[in-house]
Amino acid sequence: MTAELLNGREIAKDYRADLAAEVEKLKEAGTTPNLTVVIAGDDGASLSYVRSKNKAAEKIGMTSEIVQLDGTVTEQEVLDIIARLNDDDTVNGILVQVPLPSQVSEEKVLEAIAPDKDVDGFHPINIGRLYTGQETFAPCTPLGIMELLKHTGPLEGKDVAVIGRSHIVGQPVAKLLTDQNATVTLMHSRTRNMTDKLKDYDVIVSAVGQPGLITGEHLKEGAIVIDVGNSVVDGKLVGDVDFDSASETASYITPVPGGVGPLTITMVLNNTLIAAKRQNQSK
Amino acid sequence: MTAELLNGREIAKDYRADLAAEVEKLKEAGTTPNLTVVIAGDDGASLSYVRSKNKAAEKIGMTSEIVQLDGTVTEQEVLDIIARLNDDDTVNGILVQVPLPSQVSEEKVLEAIAPDKDVDGFHPINIGRLYTGQETFAPCTPLGIMELLKHTGPLEGKDVAVIGRSHIVGQPVAKLLTDQNATVTLMHSRTRNMTDKLKDYDVIVSAVGQPGLITGEHLKEGAIVIDVGNSVVDGKLVGDVDFDSASETASYITPVPGGVGPLTITMVLNNTLIAAKRQNQSK
Repeated sequence: MTAELLNGREIAKDYRADLAAEVEKLKEAGTTPNLTVVIAGDDGASLSYVRSKNKAAEKIGMTSEIVQLDGTVTEQEVLDIIARLNDDDTVNGILVQVPLPSQVSEEKVLEAIAPDKDVDGFHPINIGRLYTGQETFAPCTPLGIMELLKHTGPLEGKDVAVIGRSHIVGQPVAKLLTDQNATVTLMHSRTRNMTDKLKDYDVIVSAVGQPGLITGEHLKEGAIVIDVGNSVVDGKLVGDVDFDSASETASYITPVPGGVGPLTITMVLNNTLIAAKRQNQSK
Repeated sequence: MTAELLNGREIAKDYRADLAAEVEKLKEAGTTPNLTVVIAGDDGASLSYVRSKNKAAEKIGMTSEIVQLDGTVTEQEVLDIIARLNDDDTVNGILVQVPLPSQVSEEKVLEAIAPDKDVDGFHPINIGRLYTGQETFAPCTPLGIMELLKHTGPLEGKDVAVIGRSHIVGQPVAKLLTDQNATVTLMHSRTRNMTDKLKDYDVIVSAVGQPGLITGEHLKEGAIVIDVGNSVVDGKLVGDVDFDSASETASYITPVPGGVGPLTITMVLNNTLIAAKRQNQSK
Protein backbone atom coordinates (compact mmCIF):
# COMPACT_ATOMS: atom_id res chain seq x y z
CA MET A 1 0.00 0.00 0.00
CA THR A 2 1.24 3.50 -0.72
CA ALA A 3 -0.39 6.02 1.53
CA GLU A 4 -2.49 8.93 0.38
CA LEU A 5 -1.06 12.23 1.61
CA LEU A 6 -3.19 14.23 4.05
CA ASN A 7 -2.10 17.58 2.72
CA GLY A 8 -2.71 19.97 5.60
CA ARG A 9 -1.88 23.04 3.56
CA GLU A 10 -4.51 22.28 0.94
CA ILE A 11 -7.16 21.19 3.42
CA ALA A 12 -6.48 24.35 5.43
CA LYS A 13 -6.68 26.49 2.30
CA ASP A 14 -10.15 25.18 1.44
CA TYR A 15 -11.30 25.56 5.02
CA ARG A 16 -10.02 29.13 5.23
CA ALA A 17 -11.80 30.03 2.02
CA ASP A 18 -15.06 28.98 3.70
CA LEU A 19 -14.12 30.99 6.79
CA ALA A 20 -13.39 34.06 4.65
CA ALA A 21 -16.90 33.81 3.18
CA GLU A 22 -18.39 33.67 6.68
CA VAL A 23 -16.27 36.58 7.85
CA GLU A 24 -17.54 38.56 4.87
CA LYS A 25 -21.15 37.86 5.89
CA LEU A 26 -20.46 38.95 9.46
CA LYS A 27 -18.86 42.14 8.20
CA GLU A 28 -21.90 42.92 6.07
CA ALA A 29 -23.94 42.52 9.25
CA GLY A 30 -21.66 45.05 10.95
CA THR A 31 -19.13 42.94 12.88
CA THR A 32 -15.50 42.45 11.94
CA PRO A 33 -14.08 39.52 13.92
CA ASN A 34 -10.90 40.41 15.77
CA LEU A 35 -8.15 38.19 17.11
CA THR A 36 -5.71 39.76 19.56
CA VAL A 37 -2.50 37.99 20.51
CA VAL A 38 -0.47 38.84 23.60
CA ILE A 39 3.22 37.99 23.63
CA ALA A 40 5.92 38.84 26.16
CA GLY A 41 9.64 38.75 25.46
CA ASP A 42 11.45 38.46 22.18
CA ASP A 43 11.81 34.74 21.51
CA GLY A 44 12.20 34.58 17.74
CA ALA A 45 10.28 31.34 17.15
CA SER A 46 7.32 32.47 19.29
CA LEU A 47 7.24 35.85 17.60
CA SER A 48 7.25 34.34 14.14
CA TYR A 49 4.45 31.93 15.14
CA VAL A 50 2.39 34.82 16.52
CA ARG A 51 2.92 36.82 13.35
CA SER A 52 1.79 33.89 11.21
CA LYS A 53 -1.48 33.66 13.18
CA ASN A 54 -1.89 37.39 12.82
CA LYS A 55 -1.34 37.30 9.07
CA ALA A 56 -3.65 34.30 8.65
CA ALA A 57 -6.43 36.18 10.46
CA GLU A 58 -6.01 39.25 8.27
CA LYS A 59 -5.92 37.13 5.14
CA ILE A 60 -9.48 35.89 5.76
CA GLY A 61 -10.74 39.40 6.49
CA MET A 62 -10.48 39.52 10.28
CA THR A 63 -8.63 42.26 12.08
CA SER A 64 -5.78 41.15 14.28
CA GLU A 65 -3.50 42.90 16.73
CA ILE A 66 -0.35 41.83 18.49
CA VAL A 67 0.17 43.20 21.98
CA GLN A 68 3.92 42.89 22.35
CA LEU A 69 5.21 43.18 25.89
CA ASP A 70 8.70 43.44 27.22
CA GLY A 71 10.23 40.31 28.76
CA THR A 72 10.45 42.21 32.06
CA VAL A 73 6.68 42.82 32.25
CA THR A 74 5.10 42.12 35.66
CA GLU A 75 2.29 39.62 36.22
CA GLN A 76 -0.04 42.43 37.24
CA GLU A 77 0.66 44.32 34.01
CA VAL A 78 -0.24 41.23 31.98
CA LEU A 79 -3.41 40.71 34.05
CA ASP A 80 -4.38 44.36 33.52
CA ILE A 81 -3.99 43.99 29.75
CA ILE A 82 -6.10 40.82 29.75
CA ALA A 83 -8.78 42.64 31.77
CA ARG A 84 -8.78 45.48 29.24
CA LEU A 85 -9.08 43.04 26.29
CA ASN A 86 -11.87 41.15 28.10
CA ASP A 87 -13.83 44.40 28.39
CA ASP A 88 -13.15 45.55 24.83
CA ASP A 89 -16.17 44.67 22.67
CA THR A 90 -14.12 44.95 19.48
CA VAL A 91 -11.88 42.04 20.61
CA ASN A 92 -13.51 38.63 20.00
CA GLY A 93 -10.65 36.22 20.55
CA ILE A 94 -7.63 36.48 22.87
CA LEU A 95 -4.52 34.34 22.59
CA VAL A 96 -1.62 34.47 25.02
CA GLN A 97 1.56 33.07 23.53
CA VAL A 98 3.28 30.69 25.96
CA PRO A 99 5.75 30.32 27.53
CA LEU A 100 5.46 33.57 29.46
CA PRO A 101 8.47 35.07 31.29
CA SER A 102 9.16 33.22 34.54
CA GLN A 103 7.89 36.06 36.77
CA VAL A 104 4.39 35.71 35.23
CA SER A 105 2.14 32.79 36.23
CA GLU A 106 0.80 31.10 33.09
CA GLU A 107 -1.97 29.52 35.17
CA LYS A 108 -3.19 32.89 36.49
CA VAL A 109 -3.02 34.59 33.10
CA LEU A 110 -4.87 31.80 31.27
CA GLU A 111 -7.60 31.79 33.95
CA ALA A 112 -7.92 35.57 33.62
CA ILE A 113 -9.03 35.38 29.97
CA ALA A 114 -12.81 35.65 29.62
CA PRO A 115 -13.92 32.08 28.78
CA ASP A 116 -15.99 33.31 25.83
CA LYS A 117 -12.87 34.92 24.28
CA ASP A 118 -10.54 31.98 25.06
CA VAL A 119 -10.08 30.79 21.48
CA ASP A 120 -7.12 28.57 22.43
CA GLY A 121 -9.48 26.59 24.69
CA PHE A 122 -6.93 26.56 27.53
CA HIS A 123 -9.11 28.09 30.29
CA PRO A 124 -9.91 25.33 32.82
CA ILE A 125 -13.62 26.08 32.61
CA ASN A 126 -13.52 25.53 28.85
CA ILE A 127 -11.59 22.29 29.34
CA GLY A 128 -14.21 21.22 31.90
CA ARG A 129 -17.03 22.10 29.51
CA LEU A 130 -15.34 20.05 26.79
CA TYR A 131 -15.46 17.00 29.06
CA THR A 132 -19.08 17.58 30.12
CA GLY A 133 -20.26 18.15 26.54
CA GLN A 134 -21.22 21.80 27.05
CA GLU A 135 -20.67 24.74 24.68
CA THR A 136 -16.95 25.54 24.78
CA PHE A 137 -13.83 26.16 22.73
CA ALA A 138 -11.86 22.97 22.18
CA PRO A 139 -8.09 23.40 21.80
CA CYS A 140 -6.92 23.99 18.26
CA THR A 141 -4.40 21.22 17.53
CA PRO A 142 -6.92 18.50 18.52
CA LEU A 143 -9.57 20.25 16.40
CA GLY A 144 -7.12 20.35 13.50
CA ILE A 145 -6.40 16.63 13.85
CA MET A 146 -10.15 15.90 13.78
CA GLU A 147 -10.49 18.01 10.64
CA LEU A 148 -7.76 16.00 8.89
CA LEU A 149 -9.41 12.75 9.97
CA LYS A 150 -12.69 13.83 8.37
CA HIS A 151 -10.90 13.23 5.08
CA THR A 152 -10.25 9.56 5.94
CA GLY A 153 -13.79 8.27 6.58
CA PRO A 154 -15.90 7.68 9.68
CA LEU A 155 -14.17 7.06 13.01
CA GLU A 156 -16.95 5.06 14.64
CA GLY A 157 -15.70 1.68 15.83
CA LYS A 158 -12.08 2.41 14.91
CA ASP A 159 -9.31 1.61 17.35
CA VAL A 160 -7.11 4.65 17.84
CA ALA A 161 -3.77 4.96 19.60
CA VAL A 162 -3.01 8.47 20.80
CA ILE A 163 0.64 8.75 21.84
CA GLY A 164 1.43 11.57 24.25
CA ARG A 165 -0.75 12.62 27.19
CA SER A 166 -0.39 16.43 27.25
CA HIS A 167 -3.45 18.47 28.12
CA ILE A 168 -2.90 20.54 24.97
CA VAL A 169 -2.93 17.68 22.45
CA GLY A 170 -3.08 14.05 23.59
CA GLN A 171 -5.81 14.20 26.20
CA PRO A 172 -8.26 16.51 24.42
CA VAL A 173 -7.85 14.72 21.07
CA ALA A 174 -8.60 11.45 22.89
CA LYS A 175 -11.81 13.06 24.13
CA LEU A 176 -12.81 14.35 20.68
CA LEU A 177 -12.09 10.93 19.14
CA THR A 178 -14.17 9.21 21.83
CA ASP A 179 -17.03 11.61 21.04
CA GLN A 180 -16.85 10.30 17.45
CA ASN A 181 -17.30 6.77 18.79
CA ALA A 182 -13.70 5.70 18.26
CA THR A 183 -12.09 3.51 20.93
CA VAL A 184 -9.02 5.34 22.15
CA THR A 185 -5.92 4.08 23.91
CA LEU A 186 -3.83 6.88 25.42
CA MET A 187 -0.16 5.87 25.30
CA HIS A 188 2.86 7.64 26.76
CA SER A 189 6.47 7.27 27.87
CA ARG A 190 5.56 4.64 30.48
CA THR A 191 3.52 2.47 28.15
CA ARG A 192 4.91 -1.06 28.05
CA ASN A 193 6.19 -2.21 24.61
CA MET A 194 4.54 0.72 22.97
CA THR A 195 5.63 0.37 19.38
CA ASP A 196 4.86 -3.37 19.43
CA LYS A 197 1.27 -2.55 20.34
CA LEU A 198 0.64 -0.19 17.46
CA LYS A 199 -0.17 -3.03 15.01
CA ASP A 200 -3.57 -3.36 16.74
CA TYR A 201 -4.68 0.16 15.82
CA ASP A 202 -6.53 1.58 12.81
CA VAL A 203 -5.43 5.14 13.52
CA ILE A 204 -2.22 6.43 15.15
CA VAL A 205 -1.97 10.01 16.43
CA SER A 206 1.57 10.68 17.62
CA ALA A 207 2.33 13.83 19.60
CA VAL A 208 5.60 13.04 21.30
CA GLY A 209 8.44 14.95 19.67
CA GLN A 210 10.72 11.96 19.12
CA PRO A 211 11.93 11.66 15.52
CA GLY A 212 11.86 8.14 14.09
CA LEU A 213 9.70 6.79 16.95
CA ILE A 214 7.32 5.09 14.53
CA THR A 215 8.31 3.28 11.35
CA GLY A 216 6.37 1.32 8.76
CA GLU A 217 7.04 -1.99 10.46
CA HIS A 218 5.12 -0.85 13.57
CA LEU A 219 1.95 -0.21 11.61
CA LYS A 220 -1.06 -2.28 10.71
CA GLU A 221 -1.57 -2.49 6.93
CA GLY A 222 -3.79 0.45 5.95
CA ALA A 223 -3.39 2.41 9.19
CA ILE A 224 -4.08 6.14 9.23
CA VAL A 225 -1.11 8.08 10.60
CA ILE A 226 -1.36 11.60 12.02
CA ASP A 227 2.05 12.97 12.95
CA VAL A 228 1.89 15.82 15.46
CA GLY A 229 5.59 15.55 16.29
CA ASN A 230 7.56 18.72 15.96
CA SER A 231 11.33 18.40 16.30
CA VAL A 232 14.19 20.17 14.60
CA VAL A 233 16.90 17.85 13.26
CA ASP A 234 19.80 19.37 11.31
CA GLY A 235 17.80 22.55 10.92
CA LYS A 236 14.81 20.67 9.47
CA LEU A 237 11.36 20.28 11.04
CA VAL A 238 10.53 16.56 11.47
CA GLY A 239 7.75 14.58 13.12
CA ASP A 240 7.65 11.35 15.13
CA VAL A 241 7.08 9.11 12.12
CA ASP A 242 9.58 7.83 9.60
CA PHE A 243 7.59 9.08 6.66
CA ASP A 244 9.14 6.96 3.90
CA SER A 245 8.70 3.56 5.52
CA ALA A 246 5.32 4.45 7.08
CA SER A 247 3.96 5.54 3.70
CA GLU A 248 4.46 2.00 2.40
CA THR A 249 2.07 0.56 5.00
CA ALA A 250 -0.34 3.37 5.87
CA SER A 251 -3.48 4.25 3.92
CA TYR A 252 -3.27 7.95 4.86
CA ILE A 253 -0.39 9.92 6.33
CA THR A 254 0.35 13.53 7.22
CA PRO A 255 3.63 15.14 6.20
CA VAL A 256 5.71 17.25 8.61
CA PRO A 257 5.70 20.17 7.97
CA GLY A 258 2.44 20.81 6.13
CA GLY A 259 0.25 18.30 7.98
CA VAL A 260 -1.32 19.23 11.29
CA GLY A 261 0.32 22.67 11.63
CA PRO A 262 -1.74 24.58 9.05
CA LEU A 263 -4.94 23.11 10.51
CA THR A 264 -4.04 24.25 14.03
CA ILE A 265 -3.90 27.87 12.92
CA THR A 266 -7.07 27.37 10.89
CA MET A 267 -8.87 26.20 14.02
CA VAL A 268 -7.71 29.31 15.90
CA LEU A 269 -9.41 31.31 13.17
CA ASN A 270 -12.52 29.14 13.31
CA ASN A 271 -12.74 29.51 17.09
CA THR A 272 -12.40 33.29 16.68
CA LEU A 273 -15.26 33.31 14.18
CA ILE A 274 -17.40 31.25 16.57
CA ALA A 275 -16.48 33.63 19.41
CA ALA A 276 -17.57 36.64 17.33
CA LYS A 277 -20.88 34.97 16.48
CA ARG A 278 -21.60 33.98 20.09
CA GLN A 279 -20.72 37.42 21.38
CA ASN A 280 -22.98 38.97 18.75
CA GLN A 281 -25.87 36.77 19.80
CA SER A 282 -25.51 37.60 23.46
CA LYS A 283 -25.42 41.37 22.83
CA MET B 1 -6.66 -18.69 40.19
CA THR B 2 -9.21 -17.71 42.79
CA ALA B 3 -9.45 -13.97 43.16
CA GLU B 4 -8.80 -12.05 46.32
CA LEU B 5 -11.81 -9.99 47.32
CA LEU B 6 -11.41 -6.20 47.28
CA ASN B 7 -13.67 -5.63 50.23
CA GLY B 8 -14.84 -2.03 49.83
CA ARG B 9 -16.60 -1.98 53.17
CA GLU B 10 -13.47 -2.91 55.09
CA ILE B 11 -11.16 -0.65 53.09
CA ALA B 12 -13.63 2.20 53.59
CA LYS B 13 -13.85 1.47 57.31
CA ASP B 14 -10.09 1.77 57.76
CA TYR B 15 -9.98 4.90 55.64
CA ARG B 16 -12.82 6.53 57.58
CA ALA B 17 -11.08 5.77 60.88
CA ASP B 18 -8.11 7.80 59.60
CA LEU B 19 -10.46 10.57 58.49
CA ALA B 20 -12.11 10.61 61.93
CA ALA B 21 -8.70 11.15 63.53
CA GLU B 22 -8.02 14.07 61.19
CA VAL B 23 -11.45 15.55 61.84
CA GLU B 24 -10.73 15.32 65.56
CA LYS B 25 -7.49 17.30 65.09
CA LEU B 26 -9.28 19.97 63.08
CA LYS B 27 -11.92 20.25 65.77
CA GLU B 28 -9.26 20.72 68.42
CA ALA B 29 -7.94 23.56 66.27
CA GLY B 30 -11.42 25.10 66.26
CA THR B 31 -12.96 23.94 62.96
CA THR B 32 -15.67 21.33 62.59
CA PRO B 33 -15.90 20.26 58.94
CA ASN B 34 -19.42 20.51 57.56
CA LEU B 35 -21.01 18.79 54.58
CA THR B 36 -24.32 20.18 53.36
CA VAL B 37 -26.44 18.26 50.88
CA VAL B 38 -29.20 19.84 48.80
CA ILE B 39 -31.98 17.62 47.50
CA ALA B 40 -35.20 18.52 45.68
CA GLY B 41 -38.22 16.26 45.42
CA ASP B 42 -38.98 13.07 47.26
CA ASP B 43 -37.41 10.28 45.23
CA GLY B 44 -36.94 7.51 47.76
CA ALA B 45 -33.65 6.13 46.43
CA SER B 46 -32.05 9.60 46.22
CA LEU B 47 -33.24 10.49 49.68
CA SER B 48 -31.87 7.32 51.18
CA TYR B 49 -28.52 7.90 49.42
CA VAL B 50 -28.37 11.47 50.73
CA ARG B 51 -29.15 10.27 54.26
CA SER B 52 -26.38 7.70 54.07
CA LYS B 53 -23.83 10.42 53.15
CA ASN B 54 -25.18 12.55 55.95
CA LYS B 55 -24.86 9.76 58.49
CA ALA B 56 -21.38 8.82 57.27
CA ALA B 57 -20.22 12.43 57.75
CA GLU B 58 -21.61 12.57 61.28
CA LYS B 59 -20.07 9.23 62.14
CA ILE B 60 -16.56 10.59 61.55
CA GLY B 61 -17.26 13.71 63.61
CA MET B 62 -18.29 16.17 60.89
CA THR B 63 -21.51 18.08 61.02
CA SER B 64 -23.89 17.54 58.12
CA GLU B 65 -27.15 19.12 57.05
CA ILE B 66 -29.71 18.16 54.45
CA VAL B 67 -31.48 21.04 52.72
CA GLN B 68 -34.64 19.34 51.52
CA LEU B 69 -36.57 21.23 48.87
CA ASP B 70 -39.97 20.61 47.41
CA GLY B 71 -40.13 19.05 43.92
CA THR B 72 -41.83 22.26 42.72
CA VAL B 73 -38.90 24.52 43.72
CA THR B 74 -37.87 27.10 41.09
CA GLU B 75 -34.41 27.33 39.61
CA GLN B 76 -33.91 30.75 41.18
CA GLU B 77 -34.77 29.39 44.62
CA VAL B 78 -32.15 26.67 44.23
CA LEU B 79 -29.57 29.22 43.02
CA ASP B 80 -30.36 31.46 46.00
CA ILE B 81 -29.80 28.58 48.40
CA ILE B 82 -26.49 27.71 46.73
CA ALA B 83 -25.42 31.37 46.99
CA ARG B 84 -26.27 31.37 50.70
CA LEU B 85 -24.29 28.13 51.28
CA ASN B 86 -21.35 29.52 49.29
CA ASP B 87 -21.25 32.56 51.61
CA ASP B 88 -21.70 30.55 54.80
CA ASP B 89 -18.26 30.04 56.39
CA THR B 90 -19.53 27.12 58.47
CA VAL B 91 -20.29 25.11 55.31
CA ASN B 92 -17.17 23.49 53.83
CA GLY B 93 -18.61 21.09 51.26
CA ILE B 94 -21.78 21.35 49.17
CA LEU B 95 -23.40 18.45 47.35
CA VAL B 96 -26.42 18.75 45.11
CA GLN B 97 -28.22 15.46 44.62
CA VAL B 98 -29.06 14.85 40.98
CA PRO B 99 -31.31 14.50 39.10
CA LEU B 100 -32.96 17.83 39.89
CA PRO B 101 -36.61 18.50 38.97
CA SER B 102 -36.98 19.23 35.25
CA GLN B 103 -37.64 22.97 35.74
CA VAL B 104 -34.18 23.39 37.33
CA SER B 105 -31.05 23.39 35.12
CA GLU B 106 -28.51 20.97 36.54
CA GLU B 107 -25.78 22.71 34.54
CA LYS B 108 -26.56 26.12 36.03
CA VAL B 109 -26.84 24.82 39.57
CA LEU B 110 -23.59 22.84 39.45
CA GLU B 111 -21.76 25.90 38.02
CA ALA B 112 -23.20 28.04 40.82
CA ILE B 113 -21.45 26.04 43.55
CA ALA B 114 -18.26 27.76 44.74
CA PRO B 115 -15.46 25.63 43.21
CA ASP B 116 -13.68 25.39 46.56
CA LYS B 117 -16.80 23.83 48.14
CA ASP B 118 -17.59 21.53 45.18
CA VAL B 119 -16.73 18.24 46.91
CA ASP B 120 -18.41 16.17 44.17
CA GLY B 121 -15.88 17.61 41.68
CA PHE B 122 -18.63 18.28 39.11
CA HIS B 123 -18.00 22.01 38.54
CA PRO B 124 -16.52 22.45 35.03
CA ILE B 125 -13.64 24.49 36.41
CA ASN B 126 -12.72 21.65 38.75
CA ILE B 127 -12.95 19.16 35.89
CA GLY B 128 -10.69 21.46 33.82
CA ARG B 129 -8.22 21.73 36.70
CA LEU B 130 -8.18 17.94 37.00
CA TYR B 131 -7.08 17.70 33.35
CA THR B 132 -4.46 20.45 33.69
CA GLY B 133 -3.01 18.99 36.88
CA GLN B 134 -4.00 21.91 39.13
CA GLU B 135 -5.40 21.81 42.67
CA THR B 136 -8.99 20.60 42.39
CA PHE B 137 -11.55 18.12 43.68
CA ALA B 138 -11.63 14.97 41.59
CA PRO B 139 -15.00 13.19 41.39
CA CYS B 140 -15.60 10.65 44.13
CA THR B 141 -16.31 7.37 42.34
CA PRO B 142 -13.06 7.62 40.32
CA LEU B 143 -11.19 8.49 43.52
CA GLY B 144 -12.78 5.48 45.22
CA ILE B 145 -11.70 3.19 42.38
CA MET B 146 -8.13 4.49 42.67
CA GLU B 147 -8.22 3.81 46.40
CA LEU B 148 -9.27 0.20 45.81
CA LEU B 149 -6.53 -0.22 43.22
CA LYS B 150 -3.90 0.90 45.75
CA HIS B 151 -4.52 -2.47 47.38
CA THR B 152 -3.51 -4.35 44.22
CA GLY B 153 0.01 -3.02 43.59
CA PRO B 154 1.51 -0.33 41.35
CA LEU B 155 -0.34 0.68 38.19
CA GLU B 156 2.67 1.91 36.24
CA GLY B 157 2.93 0.14 32.89
CA LYS B 158 -0.32 -1.77 33.35
CA ASP B 159 -2.80 -1.92 30.50
CA VAL B 160 -6.22 -0.87 31.72
CA ALA B 161 -9.59 -1.10 29.99
CA VAL B 162 -12.15 1.39 31.29
CA ILE B 163 -15.61 0.53 30.01
CA GLY B 164 -18.10 3.40 29.94
CA ARG B 165 -17.29 6.98 28.94
CA SER B 166 -19.40 9.07 31.33
CA HIS B 167 -17.92 12.29 32.67
CA ILE B 168 -18.75 11.16 36.19
CA VAL B 169 -16.89 7.83 36.14
CA GLY B 170 -15.25 6.53 32.95
CA GLN B 171 -13.48 9.64 31.68
CA PRO B 172 -12.12 10.96 34.98
CA VAL B 173 -10.98 7.52 36.16
CA ALA B 174 -9.15 7.15 32.82
CA LYS B 175 -7.39 10.43 33.62
CA LEU B 176 -6.47 9.38 37.18
CA LEU B 177 -5.16 6.02 35.90
CA THR B 178 -3.09 7.77 33.21
CA ASP B 179 -1.62 10.00 35.94
CA GLN B 180 -0.44 6.79 37.64
CA ASN B 181 1.35 5.80 34.42
CA ALA B 182 -1.14 3.13 33.39
CA THR B 183 -2.01 2.86 29.69
CA VAL B 184 -5.75 3.28 29.41
CA THR B 185 -8.18 2.25 26.70
CA LEU B 186 -11.59 3.89 27.05
CA MET B 187 -14.25 1.49 25.75
CA HIS B 188 -17.96 2.08 25.26
CA SER B 189 -21.10 0.87 23.52
CA ARG B 190 -19.60 1.49 20.05
CA THR B 191 -16.35 -0.36 20.72
CA ARG B 192 -15.87 -3.15 18.19
CA ASN B 193 -15.74 -6.68 19.67
CA MET B 194 -15.38 -5.26 23.12
CA THR B 195 -15.46 -8.35 25.28
CA ASP B 196 -13.05 -10.16 22.93
CA LYS B 197 -10.52 -7.39 23.50
CA LEU B 198 -10.53 -7.60 27.28
CA LYS B 199 -8.03 -10.49 27.35
CA ASP B 200 -5.29 -7.94 26.55
CA TYR B 201 -5.81 -5.97 29.74
CA ASP B 202 -4.30 -6.25 33.22
CA VAL B 203 -7.07 -4.22 34.84
CA ILE B 204 -10.74 -3.89 33.89
CA VAL B 205 -12.90 -1.08 35.27
CA SER B 206 -16.49 -1.58 34.15
CA ALA B 207 -19.02 1.23 34.63
CA VAL B 208 -21.81 0.34 32.25
CA GLY B 209 -24.84 -0.97 34.12
CA GLN B 210 -25.26 -4.17 32.10
CA PRO B 211 -25.45 -7.27 34.29
CA GLY B 212 -23.45 -10.24 33.02
CA LEU B 213 -21.51 -8.14 30.48
CA ILE B 214 -18.19 -9.62 31.58
CA THR B 215 -17.56 -13.23 32.51
CA GLY B 216 -14.46 -15.17 33.48
CA GLU B 217 -13.82 -16.30 29.92
CA HIS B 218 -13.31 -12.68 28.79
CA LEU B 219 -10.49 -12.10 31.27
CA LYS B 220 -6.75 -12.49 31.14
CA GLU B 221 -5.50 -14.85 33.85
CA GLY B 222 -4.77 -12.73 36.93
CA ALA B 223 -6.67 -9.63 35.78
CA ILE B 224 -7.84 -7.10 38.35
CA VAL B 225 -11.57 -6.46 38.06
CA ILE B 226 -13.31 -3.33 39.40
CA ASP B 227 -17.05 -3.53 38.96
CA VAL B 228 -18.76 -0.13 39.06
CA GLY B 229 -21.97 -1.49 37.55
CA ASN B 230 -25.11 -0.77 39.49
CA SER B 231 -28.25 -2.51 38.28
CA VAL B 232 -31.21 -3.96 40.12
CA VAL B 233 -32.17 -7.48 39.06
CA ASP B 234 -35.01 -9.26 40.90
CA GLY B 235 -34.72 -6.68 43.67
CA LYS B 236 -30.98 -7.33 44.07
CA LEU B 237 -28.14 -4.90 43.33
CA VAL B 238 -25.76 -6.39 40.74
CA GLY B 239 -22.75 -5.17 38.77
CA ASP B 240 -21.54 -5.70 35.19
CA VAL B 241 -19.40 -8.72 36.03
CA ASP B 242 -20.45 -12.32 36.52
CA PHE B 243 -18.75 -12.58 39.88
CA ASP B 244 -18.54 -16.36 40.18
CA SER B 245 -16.88 -17.07 36.83
CA ALA B 246 -14.71 -13.94 36.94
CA SER B 247 -13.39 -14.88 40.41
CA GLU B 248 -11.90 -18.04 38.92
CA THR B 249 -9.67 -16.06 36.55
CA ALA B 250 -9.09 -12.69 38.23
CA SER B 251 -6.43 -11.98 40.83
CA TYR B 252 -8.54 -9.29 42.55
CA ILE B 253 -12.23 -8.54 42.23
CA THR B 254 -14.75 -6.18 43.83
CA PRO B 255 -18.12 -7.46 44.97
CA VAL B 256 -21.37 -5.60 44.20
CA PRO B 257 -22.62 -4.32 46.59
CA GLY B 258 -19.76 -3.63 49.00
CA GLY B 259 -17.06 -2.83 46.44
CA VAL B 260 -16.80 0.65 44.95
CA GLY B 261 -19.91 2.10 46.64
CA PRO B 262 -18.53 2.48 50.18
CA LEU B 263 -15.36 4.09 48.78
CA THR B 264 -17.37 6.67 46.81
CA ILE B 265 -18.98 7.99 49.97
CA THR B 266 -15.61 7.84 51.74
CA MET B 267 -14.12 10.06 49.04
CA VAL B 268 -16.96 12.59 49.51
CA LEU B 269 -15.90 12.76 53.15
CA ASN B 270 -12.24 13.05 52.21
CA ASN B 271 -12.96 15.86 49.77
CA THR B 272 -14.95 17.63 52.49
CA LEU B 273 -12.02 17.34 54.88
CA ILE B 274 -9.66 18.72 52.20
CA ALA B 275 -12.14 21.56 51.54
CA ALA B 276 -12.21 22.46 55.24
CA LYS B 277 -8.42 22.47 55.43
CA ARG B 278 -8.03 24.62 52.28
CA GLN B 279 -10.67 27.09 53.44
CA ASN B 280 -8.94 27.31 56.82
CA GLN B 281 -5.61 28.07 55.18
CA SER B 282 -7.04 30.82 53.00
CA LYS B 283 -8.78 32.56 55.92
